[in-house]
Amino acid sequence: MKKFIYFFNEGNKTMRDLLGGKGANLAEMTNIGLPVPGGFTISTDACSEFYNHDQKIWEELKEEILQNIKKLEVETGKTFGYGENPLLVSVRSGAAVSMPGMMDTVLNLGLNDETVESLSKMINNERAAWDSYRRFIQMFGDVVREVPKYKFDIIMDKVKEEKNIKTDLELTTEDLKDIVRRYKDLYIREIGEEFPSEPLEQLLDAVRAVFSSWNNSRAIIYRELNEIKGIKGTAVNVQSMVFGNMGDTSGTGVAFTRNPATGTKEIFGEYLMNAQGEDVVAGIRTPKKIETLKETMPEIYEEFLKICKILEKHYKDMQDMEFTIERGKFYMLQTRNGKRTSKAAINIAVDMVEEGLITKEEAILRIDPKNVEQLLHKNFSEEGLKNAKLIAEGLAASPGAASGKVCFDCECLKKAKKGILVRIETSPEDIEGMNIAEGILTIRGGMTSHAAVVARGMGKCCVSGCSEISIDEEKKEFETRGIVIKEGDIISIDGSSGKVYLGDIEKTEIELSGAFEKFISWVDEKRRLQVRMNADTPKDCATGIKFGAEGIGLCRTEHMFFAEEKIWSVREMIVSNTANERKNAIDKIYPFQKKDFFEIFEIMEGRPVTVRLIDPPLHEFLPKTEEEIKKLSELMHIEVEDVEERLESLREVNPMLGHRGCRLGITYPELYEMQAKAIIDAALEVKALGIKVTPEIMIPLVGSDKELSYLRERIEKVIDAIFEEKGEKLDYKLGTMIEVPRACVTADEIAKKADFFSFGTNDLTQITFGFSRDDAGKFIKEYVEKGIFEKDPFVTLDQEGVGELMKLAIKKARTVKENIKLGICGEHGGEPKSVEFCDKIGLDYVSCSPYRVLIAKIAAAQGAVRK
Amino acid sequence: MKKFIYFFNEGNKTMRDLLGGKGANLAEMTNIGLPVPGGFTISTDACSEFYNHDQKIWEELKEEILQNIKKLEVETGKTFGYGENPLLVSVRSGAAVSMPGMMDTVLNLGLNDETVESLSKMINNERAAWDSYRRFIQMFGDVVREVPKYKFDIIMDKVKEEKNIKTDLELTTEDLKDIVRRYKDLYIREIGEEFPSEPLEQLLDAVRAVFSSWNNSRAIIYRELNEIKGIKGTAVNVQSMVFGNMGDTSGTGVAFTRNPATGTKEIFGEYLMNAQGEDVVAGIRTPKKIETLKETMPEIYEEFLKICKILEKHYKDMQDMEFTIERGKFYMLQTRNGKRTSKAAINIAVDMVEEGLITKEEAILRIDPKNVEQLLHKNFSEEGLKNAKLIAEGLAASPGAASGKVCFDCECLKKAKKGILVRIETSPEDIEGMNIAEGILTIRGGMTSHAAVVARGMGKCCVSGCSEISIDEEKKEFETRGIVIKEGDIISIDGSSGKVYLGDIEKTEIELSGAFEKFISWVDEKRRLQVRMNADTPKDCATGIKFGAEGIGLCRTEHMFFAEEKIWSVREMIVSNTANERKNAIDKIYPFQKKDFFEIFEIMEGRPVTVRLIDPPLHEFLPKTEEEIKKLSELMHIEVEDVEERLESLREVNPMLGHRGCRLGITYPELYEMQAKAIIDAALEVKALGIKVTPEIMIPLVGSDKELSYLRERIEKVIDAIFEEKGEKLDYKLGTMIEVPRACVTADEIAKKADFFSFGTNDLTQITFGFSRDDAGKFIKEYVEKGIFEKDPFVTLDQEGVGELMKLAIKKARTVKENIKLGICGEHGGEPKSVEFCDKIGLDYVSCSPYRVLIAKIAAAQGAVRK
Repeated sequence: MKKFIYFFNEGNKTMRDLLGGKGANLAEMTNIGLPVPGGFTISTDACSEFYNHDQKIWEELKEEILQNIKKLEVETGKTFGYGENPLLVSVRSGAAVSMPGMMDTVLNLGLNDETVESLSKMINNERAAWDSYRRFIQMFGDVVREVPKYKFDIIMDKVKEEKNIKTDLELTTEDLKDIVRRYKDLYIREIGEEFPSEPLEQLLDAVRAVFSSWNNSRAIIYRELNEIKGIKGTAVNVQSMVFGNMGDTSGTGVAFTRNPATGTKEIFGEYLMNAQGEDVVAGIRTPKKIETLKETMPEIYEEFLKICKILEKHYKDMQDMEFTIERGKFYMLQTRNGKRTSKAAINIAVDMVEEGLITKEEAILRIDPKNVEQLLHKNFSEEGLKNAKLIAEGLAASPGAASGKVCFDCECLKKAKKGILVRIETSPEDIEGMNIAEGILTIRGGMTSHAAVVARGMGKCCVSGCSEISIDEEKKEFETRGIVIKEGDIISIDGSSGKVYLGDIEKTEIELSGAFEKFISWVDEKRRLQVRMNADTPKDCATGIKFGAEGIGLCRTEHMFFAEEKIWSVREMIVSNTANERKNAIDKIYPFQKKDFFEIFEIMEGRPVTVRLIDPPLHEFLPKTEEEIKKLSELMHIEVEDVEERLESLREVNPMLGHRGCRLGITYPELYEMQAKAIIDAALEVKALGIKVTPEIMIPLVGSDKELSYLRERIEKVIDAIFEEKGEKLDYKLGTMIEVPRACVTADEIAKKADFFSFGTNDLTQITFGFSRDDAGKFIKEYVEKGIFEKDPFVTLDQEGVGELMKLAIKKARTVKENIKLGICGEHGGEPKSVEFCDKIGLDYVSCSPYRVLIAKIAAAQGAVRK
Repeated sequence: MKKFIYFFNEGNKTMRDLLGGKGANLAEMTNIGLPVPGGFTISTDACSEFYNHDQKIWEELKEEILQNIKKLEVETGKTFGYGENPLLVSVRSGAAVSMPGMMDTVLNLGLNDETVESLSKMINNERAAWDSYRRFIQMFGDVVREVPKYKFDIIMDKVKEEKNIKTDLELTTEDLKDIVRRYKDLYIREIGEEFPSEPLEQLLDAVRAVFSSWNNSRAIIYRELNEIKGIKGTAVNVQSMVFGNMGDTSGTGVAFTRNPATGTKEIFGEYLMNAQGEDVVAGIRTPKKIETLKETMPEIYEEFLKICKILEKHYKDMQDMEFTIERGKFYMLQTRNGKRTSKAAINIAVDMVEEGLITKEEAILRIDPKNVEQLLHKNFSEEGLKNAKLIAEGLAASPGAASGKVCFDCECLKKAKKGILVRIETSPEDIEGMNIAEGILTIRGGMTSHAAVVARGMGKCCVSGCSEISIDEEKKEFETRGIVIKEGDIISIDGSSGKVYLGDIEKTEIELSGAFEKFISWVDEKRRLQVRMNADTPKDCATGIKFGAEGIGLCRTEHMFFAEEKIWSVREMIVSNTANERKNAIDKIYPFQKKDFFEIFEIMEGRPVTVRLIDPPLHEFLPKTEEEIKKLSELMHIEVEDVEERLESLREVNPMLGHRGCRLGITYPELYEMQAKAIIDAALEVKALGIKVTPEIMIPLVGSDKELSYLRERIEKVIDAIFEEKGEKLDYKLGTMIEVPRACVTADEIAKKADFFSFGTNDLTQITFGFSRDDAGKFIKEYVEKGIFEKDPFVTLDQEGVGELMKLAIKKARTVKENIKLGICGEHGGEPKSVEFCDKIGLDYVSCSPYRVLIAKIAAAQGAVRK
């Protein structure tokens, strides 16, 4: 016959799948000799078998439970639900991964009219015994038999009203006995039968309820949302009760082996004497700090310290524990790896390496790179948040916390010393404003909207898609939850939670500890993948260098054009009808460009800088308002109607698939020639200052080797002419972005003409899937909900599709040019899973926003360690 | 020393690359014993060497030319440019492929003041001799030394004016001598030296001019336009002159071995007695039909017949020949494969197979599939075109000829019995009108615009992109070349040439000969690839079946929706906000859909029918005018503002990459469920009539296997329910379109869930390249001109990119499901090169518009034969 039940000493921590996390840890603690109240675990196998038996406890399982209860009676010397020394048990669910939503806990199971009296004597407190009994009936009725909880509350309230008292604590033993009677009546009315006094009946019913709760809708939704798959069910832990409320030498508490907020190596927790577990959480009595136990019960404290040490050594991680002291005897009720802040995680990992508890590699794997982002941004202080008034919630688009005056445009931001830019949605024209804003709040747009992407790039806090706000642009105000906020009013936004608050809120400062530096040095030691940044301005560069960026992987030249002074020349260029008009406009841009490049090369001090030649989303540059059109017509000395006609002819049905990237470079060759000249001229000037400079010129949106060779030839000609004219040379590279599926498929041909490839996975994802980021919002959420997509492919790189194309491209490119430099510069370059994938498929570097450099480094190191 | 010159008996027809086409054929004819005037060929190697010598005739080549002239003198018994019996030669260029633009011919080279007298005696016609001399000076001056031709004409005209005569024929010998003198003076004035009387000098200069002309701009442009690559230069043929103008037993002519218009097996051509080649073409005298030679010179005629037979047997193809009779002796001057009409091509190929001259396989390869299209459409008669007034030219978007009343909308077309739809551009709303129009004329849009694609699908004549026309929609008229055409005026359009004429023009009828049927039977015998059609209506089906379509590869359901009665329900469906509203609208569509499917299944009589579930280009369906919006608001009982708001929310930035295809099927499951039900209900009804039916349901735009399995499950459920309800079953297939790069990359996973794949190469091309058909117009032409694209990838499948993805998909799919059925249903399915590629990569079928079925069949057979 198959074994479904394991006594605690029959299991161990490796048996999570079968015993659940809780059961495996109880077994483990038992086996390493820690004081754990006896008990057994009904396995997850039993849970799935339960569903084969029409959701009934079948005869064999019942028999096995009975055998184990008997074993437990022998071990404890108590009798289950009878006599002077009754065995009471707790029943707890526990799957292989922690999962809210299922039935949780029933305590004091085994209580009935007889054992409540024995308990009363055991703990020498009649009131407490009856209170336990009352709670047991309520808990059992509620969680096991689904009697609505509020009906119990009504009875309780009624008694209090009758007695004219306010708090539970004022209830007398007699009151409690009365409540128990009334609860039992309620139970009969609701269920149609008497409350079970037979303990075995109570137990079997509780086990059945736990198993059933595995498939209640809350649990199912939780598993779907958290993508928990391949788990066969929950286990049930049946454990003999110990009592922390048996007088002054009894107590109960929770503790961590280290400080979960800071990581400091100190026991951290709290406890209550003469209390049960519930009381610690309930907040009726104020628990004491764990250190005080040293004075009140020094031996117990010593024992506990020893146990902590044993557990940490055993689990090699900080532990989160529950314990009970019953009449001076210490019991461990639970242990598990403790949750912690990012700061604590780093400090603990570094300490544990230095204590010899774990290796550097293990330490690296301990840190969730995503959480590191917290450390790099300001956050609202806990204190500050306590009194803050929440006025809206949107998407947590770019982490950090900011407070400032509400501004609807750039003018306002310039005047306000600190401003929050509030827009329906942003467009590239808002770049200047975004740059000076403290934070950005948008009404429309998702996690990959313009506002979100740009804000992350700037390391600026952003809440996007905050649709409950409605803006009245004329009145310069917005309305949310019945409150009207006017321009100049102060709000605070939290880009890590998506919350918007009224008024100013205190913030915590950023501090990167010595441990953090040590950790990053290990990361740098272990990783193979280089990490560059996407940076368009000297300011970005400075930030990225601070975080250890090893170069620029993507310097977008079109962003440089959005500043007020330059955008008009760009508009002229786009709207030009003749090569001559165009040349005029381009000539105006050249000095700006050269200056931009000079500043960037200077600050990058010889680190490689990949400049992408312009890939303007034409429609974003075009003038929109009448006013703008008029201004352009004046600048160009042509009629307004003429400008309008040209604008109309530039309109594209699918701008994403339009006349852009290298296609523009080919039809308007003056453009790329000017940019190449600006890059090389600037580089030569920087070189003349004795600063090393290594420019890499990148052609965007190449789909055919012939596009690249056509442009390469022209650009080389321009550069050769400069070298000749100045009598000075310079090493430079000329490569291409791979962002069109055809480029992947023909990567061998393209590689012949390219010194490097950089995968532009933003566009590559859009085009490979055949949906644009702007439009996919309408179905992508539903796709994720329906399980068609595991994750949003714009956030985490789609390894099966886009990744497969990348692998194909890499293979083809390397057959032609073994040492071709390969990188990635899409948003994925800063997403940990994607970075690890890039490491695995053999890229040389990833490039991400400056604020994600450290995240990418950690992910790269984790990839290297796992290999 | 390297040999650069080949005497005619040293070459043969395989030496085209070295001797050029003309030289190789002259050598071949010489070697098989045909009477060819002696001569030699200066090779293409010499041409490329010429460019290594600074475009000069270098010493060794000069020496070699001299040697060969001596050899020719010995062979002919004449002396070059001297004495009583002077050797005169023609100098002709001739590259490996025929190529206009280069210097063509200089005749009578070797004439000077001395030899003109000898010639005069030889031909016994002083006037003719001096006329030849005059022509030689002009020809030499013009083509060899670039003296502008008009300057010679001015002299000629002046002499005629002085003599008060009108035609050249009236010029006397003395006049001609005068002209020769004046021509020589002109030559001195222009060139600064005397006209060369030394024949070797003449010859070397002529050879130099031929070689130089290889790189004149006209020749370069011609090579670019016709994609002629990898040819090293032109050869020069130097051949001793024979004279057709030596009296009544001399003559000259051109002939074909068969009738090039009809293919009839009969010598076809014309000749002139006592004339030189030029005279036949010049049109001054009327040439006689070749048959009359039988009476005038029966022996010569017999000899010619024999030569024709030899040449056809030798070249295994119909020949186009030039000949000269000099004093009763017959000479062949040239032979080459003759150009012919499509009709002749078929008849000749079939006849030649029956004559045992060529194999069926060779016959199949002889036909250019593209030209077969001519045979399937009406054309304007030659007679009719002679008097037609051309009023505009656009793109030849869909072949055929049509005449009718100008109509700007559907209303007008309904009233006019025969109407030509004239629109700025068409949209799906025009489908009804396009369907009843005789032909379609649009102002905007290219070869793949909506009008062009739909018209080709309908087999309807269309001229698109006719930008010189400007429409005034209010006045209901258009203007072109200064003419105003009003609604109701009659015009004629030629979709094979892109020309637009005023008034009605007579048309030729379509007739497919018995030979054609025989030819197609061979095609069917040899091909492996099946050919289906893209057809949405019973009318399409009937056409396709007539041309031998073996099923429907693509039945687009969205086109079915454009009829007036249905489009409103579709609009309701799209604009619906709730599942309920949507269900209502969809229920209205169901009966229409079932009827459509019923009719198609019925007419297809068991041939497979692939129905693509709806992939609506949402924006094309949406109401646009105020009126339409109002009507929709009434239909749906909602406010106009409400409709407008919903329309706004449906607006997409990139409709091509938007919420369409199976994405709609997933978010609005009711839609595909209704369609599946309509298909199966209709199929069961057809089956009940005793007609076989094999529906294949196709899901569009799948990019992930999970999309397909999600939909497959739902559709199967619907179908199973029908089967259960009706107690009747039916075989059906459920497959997917492969039109997104990700589908190719993950084809193995997708194949597990699909019974078949159909490559939708229209979208696959757009998405693989990352540019949309609508927007690529702005640069694709320039790409082709600049040589970045060899061909427009929307016309001819891009084998290196899109084709490579297809191969990848096929390989992946077949590893999982060896016998999965694979087809293509993009526009490429009817383009010969693409069809051959589809055969090569192992597809099972291609699907194309009904009118292209035969083209596809021939291309498929050619592919099979070449393998």
